[in-house]
This record gives sequence, C-alpha cells and structure tokens, in this order.
Amino acid sequence: MPPPSNRPADGRIRAFVRRIFAAALAAQLLVATGCTTVGQGIDPLPSWNDTAPKRAIVAFVINASTEGNPGFIPAAARIAVFDNDGTLWAEQPVYFQLQFAFDRVKALAASHPEWKTTQPFQAVLEGDHRALAATGERGIAQIMIATHAGMTTDEFAETVSGWVASARHPRFNRPYTDMVYQPMVELLAYLRSRGFKTYIVSGGEGDFMRVFAEKVYGIPPEQVIGSSMLTQFEMKDGRPVLVREAKLDFIDDKAGKPVAINKFIGRRPVLAFGNSDGDQQMLEWTAAGAGPRFMGIVHHTDAEREYAYDRQSSIGRLDKALDEANARRWTVVDMKRDWKRVFAFE
Amino acid sequence: MPPPSNRPADGRIRAFVRRIFAAALAAQLLVATGCTTVGQGIDPLPSWNDTAPKRAIVAFVINASTEGNPGFIPAAARIAVFDNDGTLWAEQPVYFQLQFAFDRVKALAASHPEWKTTQPFQAVLEGDHRALAATGERGIAQIMIATHAGMTTDEFAETVSGWVASARHPRFNRPYTDMVYQPMVELLAYLRSRGFKTYIVSGGEGDFMRVFAEKVYGIPPEQVIGSSMLTQFEMKDGRPVLVREAKLDFIDDKAGKPVAINKFIGRRPVLAFGNSDGDQQMLEWTAAGAGPRFMGIVHHTDAEREYAYDRQSSIGRLDKALDEANARRWTVVDMKRDWKRVFAFE
Repeated sequence: MPPPSNRPADGRIRAFVRRIFAAALAAQLLVATGCTTVGQGIDPLPSWNDTAPKRAIVAFVINASTEGNPGFIPAAARIAVFDNDGTLWAEQPVYFQLQFAFDRVKALAASHPEWKTTQPFQAVLEGDHRALAATGERGIAQIMIATHAGMTTDEFAETVSGWVASARHPRFNRPYTDMVYQPMVELLAYLRSRGFKTYIVSGGEGDFMRVFAEKVYGIPPEQVIGSSMLTQFEMKDGRPVLVREAKLDFIDDKAGKPVAINKFIGRRPVLAFGNSDGDQQMLEWTAAGAGPRFMGIVHHTDAEREYAYDRQSSIGRLDKALDEANARRWTVVDMKRDWKRVFAFE
Repeated sequence: MPPPSNRPADGRIRAFVRRIFAAALAAQLLVATGCTTVGQGIDPLPSWNDTAPKRAIVAFVINASTEGNPGFIPAAARIAVFDNDGTLWAEQPVYFQLQFAFDRVKALAASHPEWKTTQPFQAVLEGDHRALAATGERGIAQIMIATHAGMTTDEFAETVSGWVASARHPRFNRPYTDMVYQPMVELLAYLRSRGFKTYIVSGGEGDFMRVFAEKVYGIPPEQVIGSSMLTQFEMKDGRPVLVREAKLDFIDDKAGKPVAINKFIGRRPVLAFGNSDGDQQMLEWTAAGAGPRFMGIVHHTDAEREYAYDRQSSIGRLDKALDEANARRWTVVDMKRDWKRVFAFE
C-alpha cells in the first residue's frame, strides 16, 4: 500500500498504478518471448566475438523461441545436446577422467605394493608415457578397473569430489573444473533462458561428470548422459547400495551417442555441439530430423590460449566430422577467431 | 489503467491499488509455497477418499514444498518415481504391452503363413492360452522378438501409436490409455504443481510407454525409464536410423530399477510408488536415503471396479513387498477403500 497522502494523492497513486502496470506488461512480454534471464540489449554471449558462429547461434535461438516465427520450435522439443571433453571443457594433454584414474593409481599405490613392478601401474607410478602406451588399450582398461570399480556409487562420487577439489591441470595449474570454456557456459545459460533443455552426451562416464556438472554447467544429474559401468544392487549391513562392477555397461561414443540419446531422452535433439569424430553420428542424428536445427563443432585452433589439434590428434581427433561439417555447412567454431575469451580465469 | 473518473476518483483508485496488492501478495504466497496450479481450498486429489493414504500424501507434499518446514526438500531433489503397469494403469488380464505383441502377431500373420502351424504363434492366433503357457518364457521371447525387433525406432513408435488408437481392453471395451488410474493421474499433477519431477520407472519398454506417457500422464519422453531393446545406428538410404535388434538391452525390473534410477536420473528419489514385488528394490532404494521420503504401494483390492489380486497372482504379484511395506509402515493404498474413483470413464 502506498502511504496515505492528501496533496496530490490522486496524481501520485495514478503514477504508482502506471508503474505497476508497466512492470506487469514487461513481465508478460518476457514470458511471451520465453526470455526471462537474458534481457533485451544485454549480450547473452559476451565471450564470443561478433563473427558468423555467434550470429548463427543467436539467430537460431531467437527464431526457435519466438512463437509465430518460421523457425519456431515448441518448448518441449527444444532439446540441446553437448559433448563434454573438448566441447565444454578441455581434454588435453589427456582426457581429465583418465588423469583422475592415473592420480588414483598413485593414491592407491601404498596398499598395492605389487604395482611398483607390474605394468601398466608401474608406468603410471613412474610417469613413463612410453611404457604406458606400450600396454595399449588393455593397460588402460586395467587402470580403469583398478580405479573405477569395486566401490559403491556413493563412494565413487566422494572420491571424484575429492579429486576435483585438489587436482590441478599440469599446464594451467588450475582445478580441472576451471578448464571449462566460458563461451560454452554462456551458450548453455543462453539456451536455458530461451526454454531449451541442455544435456551432456559424452564419452566420459555419467557418474564422473555428475559430480561437477550442476555446479560448473548448470546441468542437473538427470541431464548428464555418459558411458557407464555395470552396477549391482546389493544389501550391505542391511542397507541397499549400488556396487560398481569391473564391467563396462555402455560406451557413449560415436554410434553409441544416438543410441543413448534415444534411450535416455527419447526424442531427437534440435541442437548438437561436439568437437571430434566421436560426435559425428550425434550430429548426423540431430541433422536428420525435420524442421529447424543447429549443428556445431568446436575446432581447437588456439595453441596459445588452449591447444591446437584436429586431424592428427589421438585425443579428440576431428577429421571426418570436419569434412562433413564443411560439406553440410554446419557451424564450425574456430576457437582462435570466434572466442573472445576461452577460460573464465584468463 | 483504470478509466478516468472524478467522483470519487481517489477512493476508486485506492480500491484498485488495494486489489492489485492483494493479487500480488497472493501470487507471492503461491510462489513461496511452490503452489502454482493447486489453489488453496481446491482439493488436488478429488478421486481419493479422505483416508490415511491421502492425508499422508498431502502432508508429505506440503511439507516437502514449504520452505522453512522441517520436511522441506529443495526443488532439485524432488524426484518422484512411479512404476507403470498396475501402478499408473491396469495390468490385467495381461500386461498391455504383451497384448500389443499378441495383436501384432495377428496383424502380421498374413505375411507369415508358417505361423498357423508353428508355436508359439499358432497359440496366439487360435487364442489357445494353455498352449501358449506351455511354450513358457521362450515362447514369449519369440513373440516379443517377432513383434518388437527388426524395425526402426520411428516405425515401432508409429505401430504402437496405431495400436493405442484402435485396440480395446477386453473387459472394459475402452482404449488401453483409458485404463489409467484417475487418482494417480491427479497425484502426478499434484506433485508437479509442487515442484516435483515425475518419472516412470517401469518393467515395460521405454519406447512403448513414450508413445502415450506425455498425453495420458503429462510425463515427457525424457522422464520415461523402462526396459529396452538394443538399437543399432545405421545409414538407410543415406539417412541415419536406429534399428531395433532382436536382443534385450536391459530389464528394468526388481534390482534393475535402482540400477536404472542411478543410470538415468543420477540421484535418489524422495518418493516412489509401485504395486508389486518388482518394485520392492526401488522402494528400498528410495527409503534408504536421508531426510523425508515417501514410499507407496497400490494394492489391488477392488474386483468390482478393477481387479483384486496380490500374493498369488502371476501378473503383478505383491507378496514380499507387501510384507516389507507393512513392517516398515510404507503407505499401502487399498484401492477399494481409498479411491473414490478408479477410472476417469466411470
């Protein structure tokens, strides 16, 4: 209630009513355009340069979320999927989850004296990359099993949480969760402000990413899709637990990505972002739907601020997907050219 | 703007301001209590009798969604999971998806003349329940493969959609989607109005339920978790498709339910509803979390309006879970006593 007043009460109350109406009208407009966080005139993507990718993204998003527009997409269908490693955060010099596994080997070595003389563990403990590489996929699988299985899901989440809090990236000397790309974090928030539901669809493990995805990306656990270990429901001291077994359940990579999207989401995304050949089928699956859609690739071109790699890299190789992106005119983001800032800590 | 007026302008405008304030205050209260759809004084569960289960549900939900309350649960953690067959819709005289499979055998019989003389298909075509039962689990598996595999996910969804539109329940002569329990539909809507995220976690197939779940339950595809067939990403005439293979991927039943909840949702529900021993582990998993939680069982006690069955039934057997529910004081809904209405069409 406005304070009681006499002179000139009528005028003051009218002005007050007008202000309330103006606010109500503005609120209504914001709801109508689906725009609740990003106001008009405020740049939703300040870490992007004003180049073609940013323009294509903004045009797609505004069209998709503006009713009556030919590019309009009903809110329920606004599903956006993002690869994680190399798309939302860095993946060099090795996938961060693999670094987690190496760090776990070191942490567990005291209770495994035999590892000092047994490969692949010896190679990890001695930092011998050549010897590690020589153990091949089988060696990596042994490391993964030794560090990722045989505990409950709660215990695993706690271990990851502790690692996230203490581990540092070897080049940038920052927590790994600081290695997220600021332009992509802005894109995720922008999409959500326009009624999109943002998902991670990554080759990394779901239960690994879930530990930090909500905090760093604003993506809740139920929108994190990844590779998975088999888990087994058991009673332990009268309480039910899920024990992580030494068996891979599913690899969410390449042709596995559309499979996982169908299984977890049950409808086709309208926007997909990846950075490597592992994302090609997800991009193709997204592209093959009817109506407006957006396919994007993060191209690592900035050795100075981050890393530069593509066709020859063993991690995050971008070769066939780059050819297809160019041929089909998908949006290829050149990190050096198109991003004003890569990391928030810069 | 109120119309311009002179006599007595001040009083009228003041009354108008007061009304606006009252509305704003009411709106604020609704937001504060998380109550946006269900207004005060309107019964959110009109198809429930005013017995213990309804009171327990309402108390739990109001507490969970009222900040400052000891039973308060942050919105992001308000995950509610529901079994489907026998919990949200009927499951007698046979699981509806199995009836779909039988109907598909009949529809496909013309292009499979050999089925006339080959079990288990002959039994289905002749309606010979005894012969069908004699083929056992292997027979059912053959029927499922013949009717559920070898097509794309899009083709399967279309087939289910056609069946849903045309098939009728043998006793009630209604579309199967009319066989949903009105009290449970109200409960789902009530929970959502209080900020809960509602999920299906069912032994039925995800891609089967997704065809109708949004329409009949208001549950979007990405919140439908079920059993699944393996799918394979393929290029068909230059377009990517997912082909349903003749292999089971995952059975979302019994101990599989907590496994699926962890895999798909990544956090523990605070409310779970089931109706059979197949839901026992899901209820246990939900119960084992910290803080307030609600475990409910739909007990089929009404042979007149629906069906009456529990410990001896081959479909939806409720035996061990009923003992546990009684011992741990979970809420057991007696359909006959606690539901004013079972189906909307009554």
